[in-house]
Amino acid sequence: MPQGDPPQAAGPVEFYFDPISPYGYLASTQIEALAARYGREVDWRPVLLGVTVMKVMGLPPLTQTPLKKDYLAHDKPRMASLLGVPLVEHGLQNVNSLAACRAFLWLKAKDAALAKRFASRIYARLWVEGRDITPAESVADEAAALGVDRAVVLAAIESREMKDALKAAVEAAIAKCVFGVPTFIVDGEPIWGVDRLWMLEHWLRHGDWKPH
Amino acid sequence: MPQGDPPQAAGPVEFYFDPISPYGYLASTQIEALAARYGREVDWRPVLLGVTVMKVMGLPPLTQTPLKKDYLAHDKPRMASLLGVPLVEHGLQNVNSLAACRAFLWLKAKDAALAKRFASRIYARLWVEGRDITPAESVADEAAALGVDRAVVLAAIESREMKDALKAAVEAAIAKCVFGVPTFIVDGEPIWGVDRLWMLEHWLRHGDWKPH
Repeated sequence: MPQGDPPQAAGPVEFYFDPISPYGYLASTQIEALAARYGREVDWRPVLLGVTVMKVMGLPPLTQTPLKKDYLAHDKPRMASLLGVPLVEHGLQNVNSLAACRAFLWLKAKDAALAKRFASRIYARLWVEGRDITPAESVADEAAALGVDRAVVLAAIESREMKDALKAAVEAAIAKCVFGVPTFIVDGEPIWGVDRLWMLEHWLRHGDWKPH
Repeated sequence: MPQGDPPQAAGPVEFYFDPISPYGYLASTQIEALAARYGREVDWRPVLLGVTVMKVMGLPPLTQTPLKKDYLAHDKPRMASLLGVPLVEHGLQNVNSLAACRAFLWLKAKDAALAKRFASRIYARLWVEGRDITPAESVADEAAALGVDRAVVLAAIESREMKDALKAAVEAAIAKCVFGVPTFIVDGEPIWGVDRLWMLEHWLRHGDWKPH
């Protein structure tokens, strides 16, 4: 994690997301425009909070953590309001993003821009429309709305190749110390949280951590 | 936790701090000037992370949480740099702020401004000079540097009254959902994290959570 010198090459901003995260959704509505203002691309990378938070860190889900869960319940709508985007309390239990993340990786290998549109639809389905994203069928619906063949998506979701690809993606994220969502990595600098978009913008603008 | 209408009365910003927190230290260097820009007082309130995080939330210390501890080790110096203030890695183990917090409450009951100067000295001792704040003697040293009688401070630290006062302060903080440090509460709105000073400023300026 280097620090100090301004970035020489304007590499992409890595955007680590898990569809189950409301703060990941909020970040997804902002990150493309923010990066574009500084001539950067965004590389969307799925991660599974069930692995990073619960298995590797050994923590309970935030929604089951005393005090913090009440804070987050109060915080989510005001953060959405600040960003000027809709957000619903979907009230669904045990939402699982395995199928969505596998489908995302499969699409990304073909067409990264299409995969982002798909991920945005998945986020909107859960956090704007309040509809589940767990069943492979619902994931295929969102891909189909973008002109992708349903049967082919469903086969990809169940394929050994995409299961392995997602496992590798999560391991790669953990190797970079990604634990929460959203995490941005820019020029090797990890930045966690939608509440740190100002910090990401600081780096994109100045390439250092000095006051300006 | 009300939301919406601009604040009618400009009450103080409650600033919840524990001397053991580096982010609390960083916030302590900013909060008075920020609040003053909007005509607000700051009410400093000690809390014990050992109670809120470990006992009530059931979580391990951040410094022992996989992935997050590496992120925080990288993050602390860059946040200090962004804010333009010094910060050292003190390397001390098992730092305990019981004596400091009790002394703070005792001073606050006499002179709130003096108590803030004392808390700032405690923060600087640990996070700028890298010296321990655990022994009551070291706490008394910082009070004595402000002209307070050492023996009286030492007696206050050991008094039943101040032990009970700190217990009550922590319970009051938990009742307001304060779990981390720094937490700011302004007009009933809890805001957690030095990385959210922008959000506190947004509220102080606008009194709402709308984009401006």
